Amino acid sequence: MERAALDRWGKGDPSGFLEISAPDVVYFDPFLDRRIDGWDALAAHYEPVRGKINISRYEMDNAKVQSAGDAAILTFNFVSYGGTEDAFRWNCTEVYRRSEGKWAIIQTHWAFTRGERPAD
Amino acid sequence: MERAALDRWGKGDPSGFLEISAPDVVYFDPFLDRRIDGWDALAAHYEPVRGKINISRYEMDNAKVQSAGDAAILTFNFVSYGGTEDAFRWNCTEVYRRSEGKWAIIQTHWAFTRGERPAD
Repeated sequence: MERAALDRWGKGDPSGFLEISAPDVVYFDPFLDRRIDGWDALAAHYEPVRGKINISRYEMDNAKVQSAGDAAILTFNFVSYGGTEDAFRWNCTEVYRRSEGKWAIIQTHWAFTRGERPAD
Repeated sequence: MERAALDRWGKGDPSGFLEISAPDVVYFDPFLDRRIDGWDALAAHYEPVRGKINISRYEMDNAKVQSAGDAAILTFNFVSYGGTEDAFRWNCTEVYRRSEGKWAIIQTHWAFTRGERPAD
């Protein structure tokens, strides 16, 4: 699920993530002043980047899933490459919740590895 | 649990977090090249800062808990003040898992809000 959503994201389509996010999803990324709460707010945050992202390739490193009842916690280091070879390096945590047999993301946390953006 | 551990952390005592972290805890912070896996590795990461942290006060803003069976996902924005009024601003996700009636952290993710460290 995560890889399918990432593949679409890398082509400028945030709907891959929106389609697998729950109504009560919460979200952090390093461009925000505070947490985003709820699907509608997340959709509004994603909409301006639709069509503007172009990830030529990425690596999902060190992926791990922990399970706790109806929750699955996916963590990984992510390296994305755009038009240049300057990579963005990320830490990512996704919490998926199973509800009526269906998994959906209830928490997303993206951060820069070592707190650093790559040079432009 | 989180506030009690933060209070001890702010006085230079990382054991508050270690005592409520599970053996299989995973951990991200902005000083690392990659995720830390497991309690022993987390303890080794914390040990060098023992006695060296002094948070004079902090704010836990916007705290939210989502539940999913035996998991509870705590997210908040955190503002910590040290010797000066320059605040560190953080995004934090903690995933707690209930096992045999006891809650323990299985995932910690700290990141700088807006990906920025404060000026020294």
